[in-house]
Amino acid sequence: MERIPILKMGDFLLVTIQVDLYDQLAENLESDLINTINKHSSKGVLIDISAVSIIDSFMGRILGNIAVMAKILDAQTVVVGMQPAVAITLVELGLSLNGVISALNVEKGMDLLRAKMYKGDNEEQIDDDNSDQ
Amino acid sequence: MERIPILKMGDFLLVTIQVDLYDQLAENLESDLINTINKHSSKGVLIDISAVSIIDSFMGRILGNIAVMAKILDAQTVVVGMQPAVAITLVELGLSLNGVISALNVEKGMDLLRAKMYKGDNEEQIDDDNSDQ
Repeated sequence: MERIPILKMGDFLLVTIQVDLYDQLAENLESDLINTINKHSSKGVLIDISAVSIIDSFMGRILGNIAVMAKILDAQTVVVGMQPAVAITLVELGLSLNGVISALNVEKGMDLLRAKMYKGDNEEQIDDDNSDQ
Repeated sequence: MERIPILKMGDFLLVTIQVDLYDQLAENLESDLINTINKHSSKGVLIDISAVSIIDSFMGRILGNIAVMAKILDAQTVVVGMQPAVAITLVELGLSLNGVISALNVEKGMDLLRAKMYKGDNEEQIDDDNSDQ
């Protein structure tokens, strides 16, 4: 059975999508990703789609599902490397990738995730301070 | 034309091989990789083969070629994530992946590259010291 590899890079996971997602492959990716987040207590997921030349509503829904599932396990999902033509097509098709955060490339995606982790820690700090009062 | 994406991560490049390499794809990967090393002055290349279920002599030669080409541009290549079954088959087939360094996973591969960079710097330092005498 074909599977998309999930690479652990410190606190984050990296997935590169190079093949067309079909039902079973997408389902495997979702379950593998959730299990890997759980196993490594990952704080973020980077999904690289630089090799994807078209995003249809199915793929859009999968990306959205992954983001929601990861969020439940307290991990942020960032989609990186979208080709300009894909962004144009997305808008023309009226698909908006709701709930999915994106960044230009993997490095910027990692910076974004680190910034969100840092901000998240600060917010908790503030909440703790308020609850003490 | 299908291409394998090359991700820049700081000083290193990361390539995840998920599909069977055929002539044109392998050729594109080689030229893309060399151009990207040149463009970003990358010091290392990580090739993740965790999704590869068999390595034949063609793929072995491509990995070897990439390592040699990268070395000429002063970048070290590390193959990471080889499945245990692939390692067994390689040895049974009598293929040894000459000149290719490997590591268990991407994180260990990065550590290895960083250690090599550091060692390389030190060696240059020693050479400089000797030439002064």
